[in-house]
Amino acid sequence: MQAEIIVIGDEILIGQTLDTNSQLIATELNKRGIQVHQKRVIADERKPILEALEQVHPDTHLVFLTGGLGPTRDDITKQTLTEFFGGTLAHHPEVEAQVRALFAGFKRTPTEANLQQAYVPSSCTVLPNKRGTAPGMRFKKDGRYYFSTPGVPYETEYLVKEEIMPWIDQLPGARGLFHKTFLTQGYPESILARKLEDWENQLPASVTLAYLPSPGQVRLRLSGHSHSTEAAQQLVHAQEEKLRKLLGPIIFGTDDDTLPEVVGRLLVEHSATLSTAESCTGGYLAHQITSVPGSSRYFQGSIISYSNAIKQGHLQVSAADLATYGAVSQPVVEQMARAARQNMGTDYALASSGVAGPGGGSAQKPVGYTWLALAGPEGVSSVVFHFGQHRQRNILRSSLMALDMLRRHLEGYPLPQSSA
Amino acid sequence: MQAEIIVIGDEILIGQTLDTNSQLIATELNKRGIQVHQKRVIADERKPILEALEQVHPDTHLVFLTGGLGPTRDDITKQTLTEFFGGTLAHHPEVEAQVRALFAGFKRTPTEANLQQAYVPSSCTVLPNKRGTAPGMRFKKDGRYYFSTPGVPYETEYLVKEEIMPWIDQLPGARGLFHKTFLTQGYPESILARKLEDWENQLPASVTLAYLPSPGQVRLRLSGHSHSTEAAQQLVHAQEEKLRKLLGPIIFGTDDDTLPEVVGRLLVEHSATLSTAESCTGGYLAHQITSVPGSSRYFQGSIISYSNAIKQGHLQVSAADLATYGAVSQPVVEQMARAARQNMGTDYALASSGVAGPGGGSAQKPVGYTWLALAGPEGVSSVVFHFGQHRQRNILRSSLMALDMLRRHLEGYPLPQSSA
Repeated sequence: MQAEIIVIGDEILIGQTLDTNSQLIATELNKRGIQVHQKRVIADERKPILEALEQVHPDTHLVFLTGGLGPTRDDITKQTLTEFFGGTLAHHPEVEAQVRALFAGFKRTPTEANLQQAYVPSSCTVLPNKRGTAPGMRFKKDGRYYFSTPGVPYETEYLVKEEIMPWIDQLPGARGLFHKTFLTQGYPESILARKLEDWENQLPASVTLAYLPSPGQVRLRLSGHSHSTEAAQQLVHAQEEKLRKLLGPIIFGTDDDTLPEVVGRLLVEHSATLSTAESCTGGYLAHQITSVPGSSRYFQGSIISYSNAIKQGHLQVSAADLATYGAVSQPVVEQMARAARQNMGTDYALASSGVAGPGGGSAQKPVGYTWLALAGPEGVSSVVFHFGQHRQRNILRSSLMALDMLRRHLEGYPLPQSSA
Repeated sequence: MQAEIIVIGDEILIGQTLDTNSQLIATELNKRGIQVHQKRVIADERKPILEALEQVHPDTHLVFLTGGLGPTRDDITKQTLTEFFGGTLAHHPEVEAQVRALFAGFKRTPTEANLQQAYVPSSCTVLPNKRGTAPGMRFKKDGRYYFSTPGVPYETEYLVKEEIMPWIDQLPGARGLFHKTFLTQGYPESILARKLEDWENQLPASVTLAYLPSPGQVRLRLSGHSHSTEAAQQLVHAQEEKLRKLLGPIIFGTDDDTLPEVVGRLLVEHSATLSTAESCTGGYLAHQITSVPGSSRYFQGSIISYSNAIKQGHLQVSAADLATYGAVSQPVVEQMARAARQNMGTDYALASSGVAGPGGGSAQKPVGYTWLALAGPEGVSSVVFHFGQHRQRNILRSSLMALDMLRRHLEGYPLPQSSA
């Protein structure tokens, strides 16, 4: 089966809003081996919507429209869909009841604009939207299915995952694609490519490898192509062991894993607790850890010491060391980690001290220069890194690398190599 | 002038990578009054690339291609561009020198794959890429300009902002569009729409309003359309005062402002310092504050007290109050704010305690139930909110609302209304 995505919205065309809906839809389709062969982003007007619907490729089975619905939209989308699929805009009592129930939950009264959402094309099947007022819609025309969801990502997520995909799963369709993604931490694409060169060259034509870099991490996606999902899966699994042998501790997880989740699982397995003492990461390390549901099982807290006074007062960092070595130094970051572990009574503590930028750099300690420390029952270790010039990326890369120090330690691997 | 964007990359079609490049390009074009009338996302293969290039709309002046270049790509894009624009793939000594210089900076040696980047179509003008190995390219064909940048957002950002846009700014072109976006905090789209209904109905046809919601915030984009940018700007400015009168303190900034930046500027104006004591926000509030360059001028630090032991030991929260009222309660959040302010010696402190979810909710304190407090020289105030069911959104909305409490206080407005 093949699919197309049509994103409706001026706000995306002018760049004011990032299009995350089509990513969500594509990911879900891809899991099912359904190929998305084109995405289009068009304006919120009758003519481009009709054009896009008319220009759908003859081989497309499923068309996803997202955007152009909502309480302050002027209903161009719904009118245009009625024009294309036939019928009239008709009142739908169940949708009105659902809108009223949603507002009752918020202790608010729906406005006229909210209640207008209950008018939908008579040619559609309504997909109930539990997260908002604009319902999803399913149409059928010339043997092809069309799905329409509102532009709000939280609502589209619900409709796609809870309504549309379970319905698609019941369609008879072709399969034969399988992906597995291996998540790596701390090495750039070009170094990984060199490590993998010989293995990559011997891959059969039915298995492809893609490098998907993001700051500090590269995802390696192995795709198998065969007559069935099961056969495609076997092709990928046959390569997995070789890949793992080549990369060892560089791989921290697969598919939808995140480094904070992997670290969280390891802490639970070890019945161990964690705290942090953060300077340059400014709370982002704690945020990464606490973004995992249930992290209160192992995470106790953090001292964010953005000033030297807090480093001295709350983390017992020596004033003499701050004066002699500076805040971004090995003695200071190790004292921070040791104090966090002791003060908060945890098994492990992670600490960061670096020059996040854009200001504060010097010849000896340029922007990106970062010390990270891990304190544990066995003592304190620290590593220095040279990240880059970009503040947000330095914060992100420092946080991920600190988590990776703990991940490697808990898995029995050596700490990451210094890049300074 | 009109533009089209062609995004090349299987990783975006299958949903594994979010397309941020086209947002960046569209935003930059839009600032210049250049309309993007279509975006396409296509596979990293010869045929779809050629098709997309051949199907460019006759009215399009500028075409942006992004993706399909990089050290591990098999150069299909560069070969296909050579086929379309003519010429041959030729070695470019300056690009090789730039790749070598980039690696020397990292104290690494370029691989063969890296050096391959120096081969570019002879029909293009090379755009030097200071952030990576794949150069940008500019082509001209049939009076239309084409720009090609690598898929890595950090590199495309550099090429678009530093190379391509300054060049476009020198082209003679049509203008006559002006946007101004007003940023609001704490009210949903439907409530804002009701407040603005009468004003919206009297807007002239040359001024349009768009609602752009994100969790906790709605951006209101006013667009003026006229014969020149200046005339369009005047149309928008004529409406600004009326809009501000209707929304008052709900508007916290305009255009690219962020709430942490606005709060940071206010703290600098008031020569005041800030600390935080975080439970449910888990470091995200401190991260928002410290994501602003120069935030060390006013931000001292934070105590993240994820456990009750840390609340008692580091924030002097009363054990009796924890037992009587629970961690998510007014007495506890106010004690947290007061202690943070005193312990870290700051003028202001913000504190959070809520049920982020998905676990931990009860009938009386469901997921989303959140207390926020502000301590200052005048004492401590607190407000309770009911956010929603979604952990990450609760963390985000709590952090933004806490910042908005301080923003309103520093601007002399009353605190936000409780939603509980």
